[in-house]
Amino acid sequence: MEHVIGLECVKCGRQFDVAPSLYICDQCGLEGILDVLYDYDVVRRTLTGDYLATNKRFDMFRYLPVLPISSLELVPQLQIGWTPLYAPQALRKELGCRDLYVKDDGRNPTASLKDRASGVGVTRARELGYEVICAASTGNAATSLSGLAASVGIQTVIFVPERAPKAKLAQLLIFGSTVVMVKGSYDEAFELSIGASEHFNWYNRNCGYNPYLVEGKKTGIWEVLEQLDFEVPDLVFTPLGDGCITSSIHKGLKDMHALGLINRMPRIIAVQAAGACPLKTAWETGRPLEPVVADTLADSIAVGHPRNALKALKAIRQTDGEVMAVSDDEILEAMRVLGRLTGVFGEPAGVTAMAGVMQARSSGRITGQEKIVVMITGNGLKDVDSAIKASGEPLKVAPDMDEVVATLSEKF
Amino acid sequence: MEHVIGLECVKCGRQFDVAPSLYICDQCGLEGILDVLYDYDVVRRTLTGDYLATNKRFDMFRYLPVLPISSLELVPQLQIGWTPLYAPQALRKELGCRDLYVKDDGRNPTASLKDRASGVGVTRARELGYEVICAASTGNAATSLSGLAASVGIQTVIFVPERAPKAKLAQLLIFGSTVVMVKGSYDEAFELSIGASEHFNWYNRNCGYNPYLVEGKKTGIWEVLEQLDFEVPDLVFTPLGDGCITSSIHKGLKDMHALGLINRMPRIIAVQAAGACPLKTAWETGRPLEPVVADTLADSIAVGHPRNALKALKAIRQTDGEVMAVSDDEILEAMRVLGRLTGVFGEPAGVTAMAGVMQARSSGRITGQEKIVVMITGNGLKDVDSAIKASGEPLKVAPDMDEVVATLSEKF
Repeated sequence: MEHVIGLECVKCGRQFDVAPSLYICDQCGLEGILDVLYDYDVVRRTLTGDYLATNKRFDMFRYLPVLPISSLELVPQLQIGWTPLYAPQALRKELGCRDLYVKDDGRNPTASLKDRASGVGVTRARELGYEVICAASTGNAATSLSGLAASVGIQTVIFVPERAPKAKLAQLLIFGSTVVMVKGSYDEAFELSIGASEHFNWYNRNCGYNPYLVEGKKTGIWEVLEQLDFEVPDLVFTPLGDGCITSSIHKGLKDMHALGLINRMPRIIAVQAAGACPLKTAWETGRPLEPVVADTLADSIAVGHPRNALKALKAIRQTDGEVMAVSDDEILEAMRVLGRLTGVFGEPAGVTAMAGVMQARSSGRITGQEKIVVMITGNGLKDVDSAIKASGEPLKVAPDMDEVVATLSEKF
Repeated sequence: MEHVIGLECVKCGRQFDVAPSLYICDQCGLEGILDVLYDYDVVRRTLTGDYLATNKRFDMFRYLPVLPISSLELVPQLQIGWTPLYAPQALRKELGCRDLYVKDDGRNPTASLKDRASGVGVTRARELGYEVICAASTGNAATSLSGLAASVGIQTVIFVPERAPKAKLAQLLIFGSTVVMVKGSYDEAFELSIGASEHFNWYNRNCGYNPYLVEGKKTGIWEVLEQLDFEVPDLVFTPLGDGCITSSIHKGLKDMHALGLINRMPRIIAVQAAGACPLKTAWETGRPLEPVVADTLADSIAVGHPRNALKALKAIRQTDGEVMAVSDDEILEAMRVLGRLTGVFGEPAGVTAMAGVMQARSSGRITGQEKIVVMITGNGLKDVDSAIKASGEPLKVAPDMDEVVATLSEKF
């Protein structure tokens, strides 16, 4: 890994050499998330426009030269990334956004963007010789780890809080993970996962802890830009919970900027659920983050104490971005609008960025002339109950043709 | 559509010219499913090895020259097909099948193989100028139609039986379909959908009725063969309900054979759920099909009266294939084994072909030396309850490190 030159604490700025057991800054503790540093002169030797034009590998690992792994040898066997970027005409028309794109990351192997993070996590664990990986997660991070590890015979231990959604739990169990349901909160599950990793010497895949995972997630924005022929969007809307996806978007953009593939940065607009928006509060008040009790149906971003707060806020500040919050009702409405007008079915957290666009458009904060990218981060099949809450009930008829015709004639 | 020269009744063999309102043979009724006939000399002019090698469109429509549509102009806006074909090492080892491949069609936009059929159905409806498409379905056919039609602003009316699974219903409602829940059976919903299509002059997308849909489904086996560099497998395992997927596999293979891309046919092994296996009975006894009352958790193939029976049985006979049946327990076991060893999560019907491989291997009907392709036809997130039934419960612990270590030490 000649191209990875070290790690930098996002809080105090100290730099560290890469070491297998190093996850966070020893001085700043859990707030001291590390950022992976690259020698872009080395990267530039391989990752050129020509490399991209001729590379026939259409998955996240086409970006190997900017990933913190040694080779393709130990990557998971499932196909991750290179998800579609849509230019949805009907949605553009409805919202009055003439140049809007939807990136559907629910098309990943375990149906969320988190597969990109686990793709790197599983590869690194294998490169370091670990046979067990451990994580705490309310859902998608865990399911992605679980599925990708299963594809290459790595065992996984997953700590989940009691309120883990059923679909995500089913995925974990089917993929053969050892699932430890903690009678407590996500924060308690998180602490226990770190303790257990240390006790049993397992690799730890928590995203707001393990510095390499954000590097995997950044392949999402790399793909978007490549799919847009490196025409830089004005705005990138992303959901915001722990802060890792927001950070990853910034990191990918910084890579591309350092490599000369783009010459300006889009503004990152990070959208929280109103019921769990401590970062919005910190952003608006300028005060330090104060944890809250999360209360939103968007389970993947129901985070009261965001682990990657500093990095995310830096990403937003440095791109002249913004933090927004949307209500659960706005999220359900975004789910309906996106489904009806594009055929893309997102889970609540997955469509939160879409809800942000809708709010920004109707309040006039965006004009609709911008080039906008919306990150859809997870598939709606992961949370069917919310979808039914959003969408209402079917018509009911007896098996009788006259009744059918009478019922439908009101509509057609 | 110079390359489409007519339609042939699968029952009486009579041929018809293509006409917008022609779905089935006017003499044989619902049993008279039609088969689309191509002029392979015309197809051969475009669809060459070189065409495939240089075609940069990686979705089902790369096979446009063998599809019954005029151009790419009116295809749905979602990316359908070109799903991964895996060579899963751990699964091969566990089953003792040295050359087994898994085609994961749960990676389609609405998470099932049916998207391939709807891809053609929606395009044809648009080419014919219809603004409403109608179908009856227990699930995936409808959700695929619903999502793909939504992507291009076509309205859909879907008839579902009362026992329609919740996840599939949620998809339909989110995609904005008019969902008519019939207080009755699938067969009643099917009849009403045909009546309503005629009454309102809507396009009908029922697969065991509309002859063009099988043509879309055949792109699955086209992809498999291309992904295998046209090295012909010995066996292709597929789930069997209505008979449309089985028929489509045969059709794709016949295309490739006619075009000289393959020089022999694999045997098609069609796998029914034991609780709904009228085709297995017909196959074994040689007697005409007798409808049964379906009773299996594999809802997508819980078909008591298969609509495409003749075509499917012909496909199996002409490839020296076989019909098998597997129990619900075998299906759940296949779901676990596939998930644990490959990271692919299939719904019950989706893994039925896998259950067939496992049964055939353990009974010695296959040696494990064969080149085998297994079609996984739908994502497990569509039926979470069955997955939980298959996989059991998580460990439960108090938020206490000592308890965690004690619990996990038994396993690690």
